[in-house]
Amino acid sequence: MDKKHEKFFIKLLGEDNAYFDEAHKIAYCYDATRKRYAPDGVVFPRDESDVSEILKYCNEHKITIIPRGAGSGFTGGALASSGGIIMALEKHMNKILEIDLENMVAVVQPGVINKDLQKAVEKLGLFYPPDPASETYSTLGGNVSENSGGMRAAKYGITKDYVMALRAVLPNGDVIRAGKRTIKDVAGFNIAGILIASEGALAVITEITLKLISKPKFSKTAMGVFPSVESAMNAVFKTMAAGVTPVAMEFLDNLSIKAVEERFHRGLPTSAGAILVSEMDGNDESVINADLERLKEHFIANGASEFRVAKDANESSDIWFARRNCSQAINCYGSLKINEDITVPRSKLPALLEKIAKISAKYNVITPCFGHTGDGNVHTNVMVDKNDPEAVKRGYEAITEIFKATVELGGTLSGEHGIGISKAPFMSLAFSEAEMNLFRAIKKAFDPNNILNPNKMGL
Amino acid sequence: MDKKHEKFFIKLLGEDNAYFDEAHKIAYCYDATRKRYAPDGVVFPRDESDVSEILKYCNEHKITIIPRGAGSGFTGGALASSGGIIMALEKHMNKILEIDLENMVAVVQPGVINKDLQKAVEKLGLFYPPDPASETYSTLGGNVSENSGGMRAAKYGITKDYVMALRAVLPNGDVIRAGKRTIKDVAGFNIAGILIASEGALAVITEITLKLISKPKFSKTAMGVFPSVESAMNAVFKTMAAGVTPVAMEFLDNLSIKAVEERFHRGLPTSAGAILVSEMDGNDESVINADLERLKEHFIANGASEFRVAKDANESSDIWFARRNCSQAINCYGSLKINEDITVPRSKLPALLEKIAKISAKYNVITPCFGHTGDGNVHTNVMVDKNDPEAVKRGYEAITEIFKATVELGGTLSGEHGIGISKAPFMSLAFSEAEMNLFRAIKKAFDPNNILNPNKMGL
Ligand SMILES: Cc1cc2nc3c(=O)[nH]c(=O)nc-3n(C[C@H](O)[C@H](O)[C@H](O)COP(=O)(O)OP(=O)(O)OC[C@H]3O[C@@H](n4cnc5c(N)ncnc54)[C@H](O)[C@@H]3O)c2cc1C
Ligand SMILES: Cc1cc2nc3c(=O)[nH]c(=O)nc-3n(C[C@H](O)[C@H](O)[C@H](O)COP(=O)(O)OP(=O)(O)OC[C@H]3O[C@@H](n4cnc5c(N)ncnc54)[C@H](O)[C@@H]3O)c2cc1C
Repeated sequence: MDKKHEKFFIKLLGEDNAYFDEAHKIAYCYDATRKRYAPDGVVFPRDESDVSEILKYCNEHKITIIPRGAGSGFTGGALASSGGIIMALEKHMNKILEIDLENMVAVVQPGVINKDLQKAVEKLGLFYPPDPASETYSTLGGNVSENSGGMRAAKYGITKDYVMALRAVLPNGDVIRAGKRTIKDVAGFNIAGILIASEGALAVITEITLKLISKPKFSKTAMGVFPSVESAMNAVFKTMAAGVTPVAMEFLDNLSIKAVEERFHRGLPTSAGAILVSEMDGNDESVINADLERLKEHFIANGASEFRVAKDANESSDIWFARRNCSQAINCYGSLKINEDITVPRSKLPALLEKIAKISAKYNVITPCFGHTGDGNVHTNVMVDKNDPEAVKRGYEAITEIFKATVELGGTLSGEHGIGISKAPFMSLAFSEAEMNLFRAIKKAFDPNNILNPNKMGL
Repeated sequence: MDKKHEKFFIKLLGEDNAYFDEAHKIAYCYDATRKRYAPDGVVFPRDESDVSEILKYCNEHKITIIPRGAGSGFTGGALASSGGIIMALEKHMNKILEIDLENMVAVVQPGVINKDLQKAVEKLGLFYPPDPASETYSTLGGNVSENSGGMRAAKYGITKDYVMALRAVLPNGDVIRAGKRTIKDVAGFNIAGILIASEGALAVITEITLKLISKPKFSKTAMGVFPSVESAMNAVFKTMAAGVTPVAMEFLDNLSIKAVEERFHRGLPTSAGAILVSEMDGNDESVINADLERLKEHFIANGASEFRVAKDANESSDIWFARRNCSQAINCYGSLKINEDITVPRSKLPALLEKIAKISAKYNVITPCFGHTGDGNVHTNVMVDKNDPEAVKRGYEAITEIFKATVELGGTLSGEHGIGISKAPFMSLAFSEAEMNLFRAIKKAFDPNNILNPNKMGL
């Protein structure tokens, strides 16, 4: 980094908010991938006007700049993989600006932690449903930029379903507003729509207006044990087609169940093909109970050997234990976890899991799967020994084939985690040259000098 | 139109699908605005491949082309206001391709009439909620292109909330797919998101994949009579903040009530400040009844002098009568109706209606208002005598001031009807130069030769 540039940023932001030392380069070289890239510097804008000045300068001097929330991304979106400066938004721009009870809307800065907003609105009887597993540290700016999902997606949808309006700064420094604090707004192109899931490549989001809903008064947890993944999936379709919409409908396959049991000894049925964990909520207990009855019927009719409803919060967290801990437990199968979040139409889940089993056998890898059946999202974990280059190679070959199978089944490379750098090599499996060209044209419309988070998403 | 071009289209599509005669130019010169523009021709693509060939040719020869559904748009989106050829999609591309019960998804061609889809899925116990008042003739391609709303928006959202995936043809003829038959898909930029509400200016939509939900088993209608618009609005906020979400929450102001009564003599309370019509639905009658009880409490607490629940379908349509017929009834106030669909955050409705009353007094015009309080959308009708140029002038001055007031209150120029040509002059009230430039850059990214529905939306 040219000293002249360093001086500019220090002058603009103050010595406490612009760093070019080794310690900061190390502190901001990571995210939740295993990849590491030291940036050329780290800047901490104090407000939207700082963001604008920083971008304007970077645009003029063609300096690469990478927006960053909490750095919990799974695909390298917040990494300086092509060098450049990290713009870290969680230090100053982390305030809840307003909770508007009449319109049921929250206005936040991008650095607000997801769970902090959930807590603040729940105190007022309101509810912000999107709950990624990273909710206690990921930022809402990151959530919007990745369009994060969570456990409650089957019933309540994902981040995009709650974004009403954004303020953002374009790479040239221009501040724009997109959307309104209204349910309906059809004036102009849907800029908020395209900024969602844009992975920090189009603009820096500086303010987010989120829809809130009223908090459901009751919730209950249930579980079912199934002989096979297929029978479990059929139970899911039948239940949802019958108009019962659980908040969550999570599954663990046999490998995941065994891993949790081996590690934690909770008395799980290690010979089961699958476990389904389901949660129902609402304002009326009798309706929840009626829905649980219907759930039970569909579970039993589809071969469940066991069905259990939690009587209280303790039993509920007992049921959730296996699902919450499987990601960690499956590490017993290998020291390297190649994990993906492929998603297919719900009805294709059995076919996908069958293909994953076949592909895993072919490449001699172990692939425990678990995830969100309610929305067709499977966390697929190819587990190999990281010190065995042969095995690692086979693991990546297996993943490539799994991606192909996913696309063939009408699915997507990513239901939640985005493309970033990790999945960029697979974009051509999923998108035609015309589609990639359109992505590039849009990138260029926003960022003609290619300064904002460049060379990601296969662009 | 150059004869050479005419020949090309006739050869490509057949004589039955490409017309350049006067009769067709007249048949396709209108939409629901009062403006008329004869196009240079009309073509009827039979399938996506025709759409692609037509666009490729137009792009090469810089021929303006305007996609058209049913021509029920309120802002001139489907008009050949800069000349060019109309591409009418309702003749051939009007098939429901698939209703997928397992994934609760419908796949349709763009020319399918909204209501036809509703009927087809309701037969199977499913539900497509967006119900614009034009549902019996407007097309789903038009609905997506305008992001149409309907009566059920307060509870069920609008068209954008149901679009899962699109196929579309870019102005250069390239076919693209955007989105997936999955609840979650974060691979690549959200192209489907930006095509929604793009008013036929970015691409021609050739296939639409829509989310369906299960059909609620019961619904009930209620009405309340209020002394003032403000008290009615307060009842709405309090009800919704308490977690009761009606499907519809429609209002009529005093001028609208009086107009309906004068015309139809239904015994409406002509001295009331406002009437609210509310509808509740769900799968459990006891829950609906409990919600109606809460609705009643909030209505009475906020000054309602009357509250009535319909006992059966007849009484329900009786209650709905006033709302359904007010658009027509208010014609008694003037031969020219300048009607807008401005939308503000729910809580700003009383302030907006107060401003509309003041502005109407200032310009000496009559402005009956009715609409969707549940989502802040007010149908604002400035009524003047069309043969009195002075009055017409005052009417447009009033509307301009009403737009300004709307934007000041954090609202939008259009909640449903789009910008087209009618509202294009007002774009600068709502958008900054930076925002307009971004719209133009996006238009250029999709349509560098500016052949697709050019010179609309203030671009
Ligand atoms: C243990 C664990 C569990 C997880 N569980 C889930 C899950 O259940 N569901 C899910 O969807 N994800 C999950 N994730 C992934 C990750 O937490 C989400 O993608 C999250 O939204 C990232 O937020 P962040 O603040 O950490 O963003 P970062 O990682 O800092 O950034 C992510 C991307 O957003 C961009 N960005 C960040 N802020 C802005 C801004 N203000 N303006 C423009 N661009 C910006 C960055 O440039 C980058 O491309 C999980 C991650 C971990 C480590
Ligand atoms: C009496 C009446 C009541 C109405 N009520 C409502 C209401 O309650 N809510 C509401 O939102 N609107 C309402 N409208 C407005 C109108 O019906 C909607 O905007 C509707 O969605 C337009 O559909 P259409 O098929 O008629 O489209 P058109 O008018 O033919 O076209 C509208 C726009 O979409 C573009 N377009 C159409 N098809 C395609 C395609 N396949 N690809 C790309 N672009 C395309 C056109 O170029 C044009 O810009 C009403 C209109 C009338 C006349």
